[in-house]
Amino acid sequence: MDLLQGLKKGNKRAAAKLITMIENRTEGYQDVLKEIHKSSGKAYVIGITGPPGAGKSTLTDKLVKEIRKQDKKVAIIAIDPTSPFSGGSILGDRIRMNDLSLDPGVFIRSMGTRGHLGGLSVATKSAIKILDVYGAEYIFVETVGVGQSEIEIVKSADTTVMVMVPGLGDDIQAIKAGIMEIGDVFVINKADRDGANRTRAEIEMMLDFSNSEFKPAVKMAVAVDNKGINDIIDEIERHKEYLMKTDKYHHNRVTSAREEIVEIIKENITDKIFNDHLISSQLAELTQKVVKREIDPYTAGFNILKSIKL
Amino acid sequence: MDLLQGLKKGNKRAAAKLITMIENRTEGYQDVLKEIHKSSGKAYVIGITGPPGAGKSTLTDKLVKEIRKQDKKVAIIAIDPTSPFSGGSILGDRIRMNDLSLDPGVFIRSMGTRGHLGGLSVATKSAIKILDVYGAEYIFVETVGVGQSEIEIVKSADTTVMVMVPGLGDDIQAIKAGIMEIGDVFVINKADRDGANRTRAEIEMMLDFSNSEFKPAVKMAVAVDNKGINDIIDEIERHKEYLMKTDKYHHNRVTSAREEIVEIIKENITDKIFNDHLISSQLAELTQKVVKREIDPYTAGFNILKSIKL
Repeated sequence: MDLLQGLKKGNKRAAAKLITMIENRTEGYQDVLKEIHKSSGKAYVIGITGPPGAGKSTLTDKLVKEIRKQDKKVAIIAIDPTSPFSGGSILGDRIRMNDLSLDPGVFIRSMGTRGHLGGLSVATKSAIKILDVYGAEYIFVETVGVGQSEIEIVKSADTTVMVMVPGLGDDIQAIKAGIMEIGDVFVINKADRDGANRTRAEIEMMLDFSNSEFKPAVKMAVAVDNKGINDIIDEIERHKEYLMKTDKYHHNRVTSAREEIVEIIKENITDKIFNDHLISSQLAELTQKVVKREIDPYTAGFNILKSIKL
Repeated sequence: MDLLQGLKKGNKRAAAKLITMIENRTEGYQDVLKEIHKSSGKAYVIGITGPPGAGKSTLTDKLVKEIRKQDKKVAIIAIDPTSPFSGGSILGDRIRMNDLSLDPGVFIRSMGTRGHLGGLSVATKSAIKILDVYGAEYIFVETVGVGQSEIEIVKSADTTVMVMVPGLGDDIQAIKAGIMEIGDVFVINKADRDGANRTRAEIEMMLDFSNSEFKPAVKMAVAVDNKGINDIIDEIERHKEYLMKTDKYHHNRVTSAREEIVEIIKENITDKIFNDHLISSQLAELTQKVVKREIDPYTAGFNILKSIKL
């Protein structure tokens, strides 16, 4: 509870320790989350996503430095594609060397994807709440991949910035199909490269097909040279104003809360399966039967469900 | 049941209709899966994954054409990053134009990621079973992204081919961290581009750190020119032989079956939440309270759990 006091006073170490507690699912972590929920919900959450090689980390750094000029407290959560088998962190190291980490008004944290015992989207939402209570006014959530889980994660952001890059070839078609309705702001980074205008035109064409009320703009940037950053911030601001004056802001938060509850329920069921000795041995036994084709996995699943006591 | 008869005789239309039935979770789909489970498990499953722009589709096409020379029946499942909101398919169209689709010995299907009601990894495993009973000797599962869900999907493959490409910049570090232990065969595609040797050296260096018994090789390819294809097939074969002569093949299938059962249990819980009128209204009501900060999502989740009858 000392940690909670520290957190509410804006103590960085308390925030870091509480996030670790949630990642490791240390005894009592649910009590912490119950306790802070009522004080959370104030921070504005910005998702940064896009394919590998788009320069998302650099862009995030520049956006944060710009926002820091307004003296607002900022937090960055970098979703790190840690190996699902052995753990380990690469992005973390990369970020730790960053000069942003010397700024006392910036909190940086990388979070790994550690298998599916305890989904990353629940852990990310919990970390967002902690950083919200810690006092961050803007929380950036940066993903590395652009897969389905990453989409789930950025869906809980208030504004999502989709970072594209020239030269993705045919795959841009597939990427665009997956992300069109996720992006609120589109950025072509590394826009000094060949093909930037073509990529922009392609994205704009796809956006024309969208029938959503808010029309996202496509902004050009060269993040490494600090070019186009203010334009992107203005566009984030325009989207924020749109959310605030319609009921979309509230609507999105309801959707996100509903998903969080369902994820918590599923997480709890998984816990029961793996932590209950009887159920986990039943699972091991039925798995063998499924592999030997003596029973099918649906029958196995329904048998286990009957043993779970809610 | 006519469809099941057709499937066992190797009827393409029956296979396609049954996969659609599973995707849409049409009444009776679980009975189909129960029925076919005992006849499945013969096909060899090859996962193809890697970052966008690596040329995975082209490589898959060339590998399949080579395998077809041995007159083996092949199926391809392309995991399509359909928008989680509105559906739609891009990859499907792209693939349908492909000349492979004219080969009667090749079955091609794209599968979309349609939100989380019914996880894609369960649906993919079910489609693999259908194509197995249909008579495919090799089943290729090609992902588009390289995120966490995609990793879950290729984890159920017997051999996973990781396709990389020169020029990913710094992001290659992050990608490598996420995929190192997933890949059984590494391919540098578009190896006529600058930086191919450097990318190869970087991957080989990371593989040197691995302490797994099987040492994956890194193969160079230019799939579009059909270069390096036979080498990759030999390497898939070498991995297959390794799996078969150790207990790894069986061990992997046990892991995969266990995960399938757990996924089925979670899917069933989600179904109960959304299909039971009382529970879904309870969820709606508690969601509002969570948004208003009157209660926290954990308390909401536990209350709902109490109402679910297993």
